[in-house]
Amino acid sequence: MAEEKIVNGVNVSKLFSTIDLIKQKPEVAKFKFRARNQWIQGTHNRATVNGFYGALKEDNSRDPMVFNLDEPPVLLGKNRGANPVEFLLVALSGCLTTSMIAHAAARGLEIKRVQSRYEGDLDLRGFLGISEDVPVGYQNIRVYFRIDGNLSDPQKEELVRMAQKYSPVFNTITKSAPVSVQLEK
Amino acid sequence: MAEEKIVNGVNVSKLFSTIDLIKQKPEVAKFKFRARNQWIQGTHNRATVNGFYGALKEDNSRDPMVFNLDEPPVLLGKNRGANPVEFLLVALSGCLTTSMIAHAAARGLEIKRVQSRYEGDLDLRGFLGISEDVPVGYQNIRVYFRIDGNLSDPQKEELVRMAQKYSPVFNTITKSAPVSVQLEK
Repeated sequence: MAEEKIVNGVNVSKLFSTIDLIKQKPEVAKFKFRARNQWIQGTHNRATVNGFYGALKEDNSRDPMVFNLDEPPVLLGKNRGANPVEFLLVALSGCLTTSMIAHAAARGLEIKRVQSRYEGDLDLRGFLGISEDVPVGYQNIRVYFRIDGNLSDPQKEELVRMAQKYSPVFNTITKSAPVSVQLEK
Repeated sequence: MAEEKIVNGVNVSKLFSTIDLIKQKPEVAKFKFRARNQWIQGTHNRATVNGFYGALKEDNSRDPMVFNLDEPPVLLGKNRGANPVEFLLVALSGCLTTSMIAHAAARGLEIKRVQSRYEGDLDLRGFLGISEDVPVGYQNIRVYFRIDGNLSDPQKEELVRMAQKYSPVFNTITKSAPVSVQLEK
């Protein structure tokens, strides 16, 4: 057996064998991720992440992960957690970073450090129903990456492009996704 | 002074006075939310949420809130946190819930309990670059709400519609938002 190749902490041998498996059996690539939410009071609610479906089976091996969401006082909350639009930036940050690291690893590019900053513009007139002309969601999101490593500027620019090309959260936000919302009776 | 009106834990008096203020001074409604991210190793990275801009000033009164993001072992991680696409569902869950509660409060509709479930379909062939025909982001997200309270079914259906109409995260995902990503040198 060949030794396992690890780059940027990513097991590249396992990554390539997963890709080979999926090429033969595309249904291995179909995942279902889940969350649930319980309203607490006012702008405070609590989300839980636990099981998922993927690689042809249910995975319930993780302990539940619990997140409190709330608003700051200026938005009528009591700071019991980050707010939902901040969680969206957290999701985007994790996804761009992981996509960059994994695709760099697959190409054998070693990275020392990756840091990034996120800022999104929201006009509350949409949420409050004051104006139909104002978008309810983020109007713009700006992301700034710093990458340290023995890499040229064109290589770093290529990493930034790969992150955008392959990040599921980035592509969900920039290309949209259908969300169906139903009432259970 | 009239007493403050609280519905569903939301200070409706303050909500209405905020709406009046914004109608006179729309720039009060312009918010900037932020996050930053530090790669740790492999699929593990850490996001921090702290200050924001809103109501015409910087707000740095909150303590930093830190989130670990990672993948499960089947996706080459070590379970040090929920993964980015799960954080996206957490964001969506908090936003639909808060939007429902706030708009119900504004209409004087008292709610006892709100629970919701989220499931999103992701085909990893997009992320892995195996097929250009497969979307990289979520293909579909399904949401199921249970609402308890002294409300008719049409009132509950109306709450589900209001949540979708006014939720910033829901509208960011379903209508898309531009995200610019830059390399800082």
